Amino acid sequence: MEAQLSLKGCFPPIPTPFNGQGRIAHDRLELNLEKWQTTPLAGFVVLGSNGEAVLLREPEKLAVWETARAAIQKDRLLIAGTGCEATVETLELTEKAARCGADAAMVVTPHYYKGKMNHRALLAHYTFLADRSPIPIVLYNVPANTGVDMTGETMIALAEHPNVIGAKDSSGNIVKIGQVASVTQGRFQMLAGSGGFLLAALAVGAVGGVMGLACVAPHLVAEIVSSFEKGDREKARETQGRLIPVNAAVTTRFGIPGLKAALDILGMYGGPVRSPLLSLRKPEKEELQEILRVGGLLNG
Amino acid sequence: MEAQLSLKGCFPPIPTPFNGQGRIAHDRLELNLEKWQTTPLAGFVVLGSNGEAVLLREPEKLAVWETARAAIQKDRLLIAGTGCEATVETLELTEKAARCGADAAMVVTPHYYKGKMNHRALLAHYTFLADRSPIPIVLYNVPANTGVDMTGETMIALAEHPNVIGAKDSSGNIVKIGQVASVTQGRFQMLAGSGGFLLAALAVGAVGGVMGLACVAPHLVAEIVSSFEKGDREKARETQGRLIPVNAAVTTRFGIPGLKAALDILGMYGGPVRSPLLSLRKPEKEELQEILRVGGLLNG
Amino acid sequence: MEAQLSLKGCFPPIPTPFNGQGRIAHDRLELNLEKWQTTPLAGFVVLGSNGEAVLLREPEKLAVWETARAAIQKDRLLIAGTGCEATVETLELTEKAARCGADAAMVVTPHYYKGKMNHRALLAHYTFLADRSPIPIVLYNVPANTGVDMTGETMIALAEHPNVIGAKDSSGNIVKIGQVASVTQGRFQMLAGSGGFLLAALAVGAVGGVMGLACVAPHLVAEIVSSFEKGDREKARETQGRLIPVNAAVTTRFGIPGLKAALDILGMYGGPVRSPLLSLRKPEKEELQEILRVGGLLNG
Amino acid sequence: MEAQLSLKGCFPPIPTPFNGQGRIAHDRLELNLEKWQTTPLAGFVVLGSNGEAVLLREPEKLAVWETARAAIQKDRLLIAGTGCEATVETLELTEKAARCGADAAMVVTPHYYKGKMNHRALLAHYTFLADRSPIPIVLYNVPANTGVDMTGETMIALAEHPNVIGAKDSSGNIVKIGQVASVTQGRFQMLAGSGGFLLAALAVGAVGGVMGLACVAPHLVAEIVSSFEKGDREKARETQGRLIPVNAAVTTRFGIPGLKAALDILGMYGGPVRSPLLSLRKPEKEELQEILRVGGLLNG
Repeated sequence: MEAQLSLKGCFPPIPTPFNGQGRIAHDRLELNLEKWQTTPLAGFVVLGSNGEAVLLREPEKLAVWETARAAIQKDRLLIAGTGCEATVETLELTEKAARCGADAAMVVTPHYYKGKMNHRALLAHYTFLADRSPIPIVLYNVPANTGVDMTGETMIALAEHPNVIGAKDSSGNIVKIGQVASVTQGRFQMLAGSGGFLLAALAVGAVGGVMGLACVAPHLVAEIVSSFEKGDREKARETQGRLIPVNAAVTTRFGIPGLKAALDILGMYGGPVRSPLLSLRKPEKEELQEILRVGGLLNG
Repeated sequence: MEAQLSLKGCFPPIPTPFNGQGRIAHDRLELNLEKWQTTPLAGFVVLGSNGEAVLLREPEKLAVWETARAAIQKDRLLIAGTGCEATVETLELTEKAARCGADAAMVVTPHYYKGKMNHRALLAHYTFLADRSPIPIVLYNVPANTGVDMTGETMIALAEHPNVIGAKDSSGNIVKIGQVASVTQGRFQMLAGSGGFLLAALAVGAVGGVMGLACVAPHLVAEIVSSFEKGDREKARETQGRLIPVNAAVTTRFGIPGLKAALDILGMYGGPVRSPLLSLRKPEKEELQEILRVGGLLNG
Repeated sequence: MEAQLSLKGCFPPIPTPFNGQGRIAHDRLELNLEKWQTTPLAGFVVLGSNGEAVLLREPEKLAVWETARAAIQKDRLLIAGTGCEATVETLELTEKAARCGADAAMVVTPHYYKGKMNHRALLAHYTFLADRSPIPIVLYNVPANTGVDMTGETMIALAEHPNVIGAKDSSGNIVKIGQVASVTQGRFQMLAGSGGFLLAALAVGAVGGVMGLACVAPHLVAEIVSSFEKGDREKARETQGRLIPVNAAVTTRFGIPGLKAALDILGMYGGPVRSPLLSLRKPEKEELQEILRVGGLLNG
Repeated sequence: MEAQLSLKGCFPPIPTPFNGQGRIAHDRLELNLEKWQTTPLAGFVVLGSNGEAVLLREPEKLAVWETARAAIQKDRLLIAGTGCEATVETLELTEKAARCGADAAMVVTPHYYKGKMNHRALLAHYTFLADRSPIPIVLYNVPANTGVDMTGETMIALAEHPNVIGAKDSSGNIVKIGQVASVTQGRFQMLAGSGGFLLAALAVGAVGGVMGLACVAPHLVAEIVSSFEKGDREKARETQGRLIPVNAAVTTRFGIPGLKAALDILGMYGGPVRSPLLSLRKPEKEELQEILRVGGLLNG
C-alpha cells in the first residue's frame, strides 16, 4: 500500500494576482511563488477562498493552476481548490486540476442549500468525489464563508475513505479538531484553517495549517511548528500570541483586500481585488501597516 | 418617462426539471408552464434558488430561459435569476438573459465573502449592474441560503436607482418589508419571499410575492391577494393560515426535493434533484402527501 | 364556563421609574399611569422586560404592583411580569402578584439553561404554573433577551390549557404568529411583542400588542388597531410605516435607556436606569429627539 | 505588594445537591467535597452555572457557601459564583460570599439586556464591582448560557484592574484565550471554561480550567495539566482526546442533569435537578453510562 501524501507543515492559500485591467497577472503569480519558495513553506493552496476562486471563470482557474505548477518546485505541494456547488462539476474540475499537476484537491463544502447539507448529503457528495478523483481529497470546512459547519462526526466518517486524507477546518472549533485527530489516530490529517489557532491545533493533534497568515509571515508560522515540535512551549506561545493581531487583520478584519494590501506593503504583489470585493481605503491601509509593524513583520 | 414594470401578484420560482439522466427535461418544463398558465399567476421566476441555478452550467441556463420564454405568454413576466458571485459575471449573465427574452433580472446578493458584503459593497455591486443592465433589476435577499441579510437601509438606497424596481425578501423580517415599502412610497415594489408571510407582507405594503408555494398552490396564493384587496380579512387570514404548513413543507422542511416531490404528487413534473441535493425518501414523501392533503391541495 | 379575559388592544410594558438615588419613584409611576389612562390603552404590563424586572428585588416588585393596581382603573388590565428562572419561584411570585391585584401574569421563558429549554421542559414549566396559578397566564417569548425561542408547536400545545390565555411574541416571526392564531382559532390570544409588526400581526390574527412603543405613542398604536378593524388599509399602513423608526429607537436601537429618555422628552417621567444599564449620552438623546420629531410625536 | 491569588490548576464548578424534597442536601455536599479532596483539584467553584445558582434563593446560596467553606481545606480555593443581573445586587452578594469565606468571586456577565452589554457597559459594571469587592474578581464569560460574548478587548481592559485577577472563558474561542494571555503577560490568569479545550488553552497560555468535567474526572484533567507541564505532548493529547466525548456528555449534550447522573453512576451524590430542568430519562442514563465506560471512568 502506497504511503499517504503528507500534509505536514504550513501552507498559504495564495491570493490570485490581477493586473490593473482585472486580468490574471501570471507573471506576478510566478514572482510571488518564487519568493515564497525561499521560505520553509510545505506547499501552496491555489484557488482556495483567498484565491477569489468564486470570482474566476473555469478557463482562468486552469491557467492559474498551470502557471502555479510550473513555478512550484516538485518537493512542495500544489493543492488545488476545486469545490463547486454541484457534485459532478466538482469532480470534473478536480480531474482538470489533476491534469494541471495538482497533488491534491481541497474541496469546500457545498453551501447554497445549507439547510440540506446535513451528514448524509455531505457523506454522499464527498464519497462520490473521492471514489472517482485521481488525486487525494482534503475536506475544507469554512463556516464564515459557507454558513455550513461540517461536524466532527462527518469528518470521522469520511476519514474511512482511503482517498480522503485530511481536512482544513477554519471554524476555530478546537474541540472538534482534537476530537477528529484523536479518533482517526494519524490516518487523517487535520490542518488549522487559520493562523490564529495554529499552536492550539498542533497541541491537540493537527499536523499543520492552511492559513492566509502564511502568505505574509511564512517564517514565523513555520517557527511556531518547529518550536512546538522541539518542545519549546514558551517560544511557540510567544510567536503565536504576537501573530494573533496580524492574523486577524489579514482575515476577518480586512479580508482578502487586507491580505493583498499586506503583500504590497511587504514588497510582494497583492494588487487589486475583483468586484464585489472592494480594495482597502487609505486609513485602513495605514492601520494595517501599523499592525504589521507592531507584529514585527516590517523590520528589514 | 416610461412606466415601471409592474411586479404585482404572485410569481412561482419554478424548479428546473431534470430527466432520469440528470439532463434538463425541456419538454417537462414546457408542460409545467402550460399548466401553470391556466392559473392567475402573474409570471415566473426562472432559475432562482428553487431552480437549482447554482447547480447548472451557463449553457444550460440559457437553454432553460429560451424554453421558458417560448412557453410563457407575453402577458406574463419571465424574471430570470442571474446573480453570480462576481459583479462582471452577473452583468454578462443578465445581458444574456435579456437576449433570451427575460423581462427583468432577480439578482441574489453575492455571498461567499459574506463578511465583506456590507452596505458599501452591495451598493457598488448593484449600482454597477443596474447602470448597465438592459432589463430592470429586482434585488433578492435570501439569508437562509446566503448568510447575507441586506438591510432596509441598503434597499432604500438602491431604490433611488431607476433601474432597480423592487426586491424579493425571503428573510421573513416583516418590519423591514414595511419600512422599505413605507419609505419608498410605491416607487419600489416589495415582494414576499416566502408564502408563509404573503398576507402579512401585503398588509404592510408589499405588492405580491415570489414563493415556492405558488408552484403548488397557485390558485390559493392568488386568492390571498384578491381577498386582501377586496378587504375580506377573514378569508385572507383563513387561507393564509391553512397554507402555512404546506409552505413550510416545500421550503425549510423538505426544500427543493420536497417541492419537486409535491409537483409529482399533484400531477405535474417534479422529478429528480441534482447532487449534492438528495431526493426525499419514502417516509418523507408520505408525510408530505399528508400535509398536502390536510392543506386541501389533493381534492379533485 | 367563565368567559376568558380579553387581551384585545394595546398594552404598554411600562418602565419602572427610579429617583436620583436609584429608588423606585412611586409618585412618578402614579403620574405616568394617570397620563396614560387619558389614552385608549387597554391596560398595562407592569414589570416586563421594559420594567427592568430583573434588576429589582422581590419587595420592590410587590410595591410596584401595589402602586400600579391602586392607580389603574378597574376597566383596564394590570398584567404582571412574574417569570423567574425557577419554576417554583415563578409560581410563588405569580401568587403574590395576584394578591396585589394583577389580572393576569405574563411569564417569560426560563432561559439561563437555554440548551435545555426544549418543548418538553417548557411544557412542564408552564403546565405546572398554569395548573396552580390563581390568575390566567400569558406566555412571553422574547429571544432577543432570552436566547430561547418558543416554537409555535409549544404555544399550540400550551393553548390547550384553560389557564393559558395567550402569548406575547417579540421574535418578529410573523409566520409563527399566524400559524398559532390559525390553529388555535380564537381560543388563544396572540399579541405582537413589538410595535414594529403590530399591523402585520393583526393581519394574521393577533388581537393586539404589548409594545414599548405604546408607552410613547399610545394614540397612534391604538389608531393602527382601529384603522385595521375599520378596513382602512391605507391609513393603517401609513401609521405603521411612520412609527417603525420610532419603534426601533425605543427598542433595539436605544433600549430601555432610550424609552426612558423618550418619556422625559415627551413630558412624562423616564428618569435614570439601573446599572448595568447606562443612560443615553447627549448625542444619542439628540438623535432620539429628532426621530421622535420626524415620527410626529413632538407636535403639540 | 501582595502576591496575586493563584488560579493555577483544575477547578470543578460543583453541582448543588438537592434531596428528594427539593431542599439542599448539605450532608451530601460535604460528602462530595470530602471525596473530591482526595484528588489533585486546586479548589472549587461553588454556585456557578453548574451549581444551578439561578434556581436558588439568596439564603440558600449563603448556606451552601457556609457548608462548602467548612468542608474545603484551607489550601484549596473556594471561588463563589456571585453574578446577578443588577450591579449593586452583585456587589452585595459578593460581600456576603466574602463573609462566608470565599477566596474569590467568579462573576458572570449580566445578560438579560444583552443588546446593551457592550464594552462600555461591561467595563463599568466590573469596575464598580472590583473597586469595592473585598475579594478578587474572576470574570466569567459563558455565551452558551448568557448570549453575551465578552470580547478579548474587554478582558484586556479589565485586566488592568488590580482586583480583577482572571477569567473563565467557556466560549471555546481559543484565539481569544491566546490573545488575552499573550497581551496580559501573566498578570491576568485565563482559565479554560470547558474540559474539551483544556489542553489547547494551556498551550496558548491558560493557567488551568474551571470545568464540569473536573467533577467526574478530577484525576484525568489534572493529568492533562501535569503531562503538559512535563512536556509529554503525546500523553496530554491522548488524555485530552479520550475525554472529549465524556466532556460533551456532561456539558452540552446532557447538561446539569447529565452531570448529576454521572456523579450518581460514579458513586458520589448527584441527585435531582430543580425545575424547569428535567432529570435524564432511562435511555439517556444508559447512553451516559456507556460514554463514561468508553472514557475509562468506570474501571475500578
